[in-house]
Amino acid sequence: MSIVVGYIPSPEGEAALQRAILEAERSQSRLTVVNASKGDTPIDNRLIDAKQHHELEERLAASGVDFWIERSPVGSDPADKILGVARAQRAELIVIGMRKRSPVGKYIMGSTAQRILLQAECPVLSLKAEYAW
Amino acid sequence: MSIVVGYIPSPEGEAALQRAILEAERSQSRLTVVNASKGDTPIDNRLIDAKQHHELEERLAASGVDFWIERSPVGSDPADKILGVARAQRAELIVIGMRKRSPVGKYIMGSTAQRILLQAECPVLSLKAEYAW
Repeated sequence: MSIVVGYIPSPEGEAALQRAILEAERSQSRLTVVNASKGDTPIDNRLIDAKQHHELEERLAASGVDFWIERSPVGSDPADKILGVARAQRAELIVIGMRKRSPVGKYIMGSTAQRILLQAECPVLSLKAEYAW
Repeated sequence: MSIVVGYIPSPEGEAALQRAILEAERSQSRLTVVNASKGDTPIDNRLIDAKQHHELEERLAASGVDFWIERSPVGSDPADKILGVARAQRAELIVIGMRKRSPVGKYIMGSTAQRILLQAECPVLSLKAEYAW
């Protein structure tokens, strides 16, 4: 059994990670943490550096779940990466964080989330940092 | 604890219902089944009739979960209804079925699913009938 979570260092990424750890514990599943970013900003805080990778490894080890961290090279499409890893592993669940939208952007979903939701070949659990419980 | 599921008599509605029953069993939560339709077709097969209601009641009773079936009047917006029930109950999870899209509609998500995903104040589990396991 395998669970895949999209992770970026942000409130929604943290919420997704925490929930994915819980789900992996509950179903005794292997957890793959995918960190990817299109690299479309001059300074990309979405990709974790070596220090953040190490801290993430320590957190996951402390949780006791069987895990793997998949860091994608800059410019990898996060949806492609998450969907690809999930497909390769025949994952039972994908967990993604979602941004709470401003009133203006309320009806527009990010393309990464939308592609994962539409193309995933397994159930997708999506959550916002504000309502992650 | 409370779980809300959007249900219509269709493969994706069935997949959502089955998964929601499992989740309710697993977390010992009360399950509210919301059946609503905009009523924008001449013959609306999405709203359950008295016979289907009765059959649904029997299935849910057999599952052993604590349940409630909420049938909305014709013309109720399904997203509003599901979000409203979930908010009122401070639901821990919303479960929705999603259609697998044709290549043409691949990147267009139904507005009901999109609104639920963006506006839900709890995690949302979405699944397609083909990949419901």
